[in-house]
Amino acid sequence: MQVVRTVTQWRSIRRSLSSQTQRIGLVPTMGFLHDGHLSLIRIARQHCDIIVVTCFVNPTQFVPGEDFERYPRDENRDLALLKQEGVDYVLLPGGDDIYPEGFSTSIQPPASSQGWCGQSRPGHFQGVCTIVSILFNLVQPHFAFFGRKDAQQCAVIQAMTRDLNFPIEIVLCPIVRESDGLAMSSRNVYLSDEERRRALVLSKTLRLGLTLFQQGVVDSQAVLDEGKKQIQTMEGVRLDYLGVVNQNTFKSVSIIQPGNYYIGAMYVGTTRLIDNMVFGLGEAPCSE
Amino acid sequence: MQVVRTVTQWRSIRRSLSSQTQRIGLVPTMGFLHDGHLSLIRIARQHCDIIVVTCFVNPTQFVPGEDFERYPRDENRDLALLKQEGVDYVLLPGGDDIYPEGFSTSIQPPASSQGWCGQSRPGHFQGVCTIVSILFNLVQPHFAFFGRKDAQQCAVIQAMTRDLNFPIEIVLCPIVRESDGLAMSSRNVYLSDEERRRALVLSKTLRLGLTLFQQGVVDSQAVLDEGKKQIQTMEGVRLDYLGVVNQNTFKSVSIIQPGNYYIGAMYVGTTRLIDNMVFGLGEAPCSE
Repeated sequence: MQVVRTVTQWRSIRRSLSSQTQRIGLVPTMGFLHDGHLSLIRIARQHCDIIVVTCFVNPTQFVPGEDFERYPRDENRDLALLKQEGVDYVLLPGGDDIYPEGFSTSIQPPASSQGWCGQSRPGHFQGVCTIVSILFNLVQPHFAFFGRKDAQQCAVIQAMTRDLNFPIEIVLCPIVRESDGLAMSSRNVYLSDEERRRALVLSKTLRLGLTLFQQGVVDSQAVLDEGKKQIQTMEGVRLDYLGVVNQNTFKSVSIIQPGNYYIGAMYVGTTRLIDNMVFGLGEAPCSE
Repeated sequence: MQVVRTVTQWRSIRRSLSSQTQRIGLVPTMGFLHDGHLSLIRIARQHCDIIVVTCFVNPTQFVPGEDFERYPRDENRDLALLKQEGVDYVLLPGGDDIYPEGFSTSIQPPASSQGWCGQSRPGHFQGVCTIVSILFNLVQPHFAFFGRKDAQQCAVIQAMTRDLNFPIEIVLCPIVRESDGLAMSSRNVYLSDEERRRALVLSKTLRLGLTLFQQGVVDSQAVLDEGKKQIQTMEGVRLDYLGVVNQNTFKSVSIIQPGNYYIGAMYVGTTRLIDNMVFGLGEAPCSE
């Protein structure tokens, strides 16, 4: 496994790789890896000859007042895990290397970025689309792998890739959960034991919505009302949003169809958590 | 020469081209080719094994009320010229193929897009950056060739390419002029004989500014005052802007340095023309 710390060094490596004979896979992360990230790498291995993992805590996708500074970092642990997974290249660029002085271009994200996380975190998806475009152009992968926990991000990146004609296949990978149902997230480390217990209300609420749909409830408002009640009665938790959306456009739907997403975001103390499930399916499988 | 009319067809051709053994050059145009375009192709031939020319009148870079509908088009003439030049592939995509239903991503252009054409044509550079990104991703060239007549566009595209890390070398090519000094432009066809004569005031004004600088005038305001007088005294002509700018940032400079640009835009009747020259140099050479 080769650890690459500068854009210049990576460019020279990339020129030595043949796109014709080798399938290159990109797994972009912000580091502090968990089993969710590792599952992306294992899925990437099924498609690709060369796996490139990037660990970069991208400042531009954090909104002012968010946790950019204290976002968890543990480079040595990350590198050990990536080596274990047989990753070929790890890119650990510095912030100034990605955003040098004078940097001023960005991506105006597609329509699916509106509402939900796009509303709670203004500028977030612009930052995501910009860094993902930069990484796409740097790594020039054939495939790029994203976790479905960030469901709206997945829809946004798929639309951006299609709109801008990036010659890259986006592979969306299933959410990995703790045994009690909590979706894995680097931010779970922020949670105290008490908060950790309270955090479960999100996945339980989504699961309940799917059960209601199975029982014949197709009115999204009924599902949302029940869901909001669940979350609002949990102490120490503050609902950000709960929505039933079309899986591509991320527009609200009133009549639930199989394949629609039940999405939610909430604060447990100061920690913001998101999760989603798919009506009629539970967890969405790998998009491949 | 192969004429390609759909994105799908092009993608399959592109997959058959080897980036490892063949240098691919992109010359993006809006068609209605003149000697300026042909010079780009000839310069491209010096760098590349395969030349791809795109002819696409990009609607999103026209501002409401501009000449998108009546922009001159002559496909048969263009194809004959391109064949004569030994171009390998001509891409003539349809508007719906580039901007299918639901298209909603765009590029927020870099800082150098502010002011000048960016101010006179709000949204223009966003449209330019978006189509250029799409073409970059579709064609995946090693080199892309742009004419220096659109000086601010050149700076914007260079900054975008650098910021987003497109693995593409941008080559800026000299302005080609008619024998009387008028910069070649597809829009020159709009001009009546009378307007054609009046249009000369732009290049003459820029040339005069360069002469003043040669004579020791370094105060940009003095040069601009003289220039504005020239243009404002010409009948049937309306000044849009005249500026002395840093060649990279496109910010105004007060003390002229060699390499700074003298840029201008004006309307002759309803036709908008732009031009530029370089202090201490006259015409900027090919950036290679």
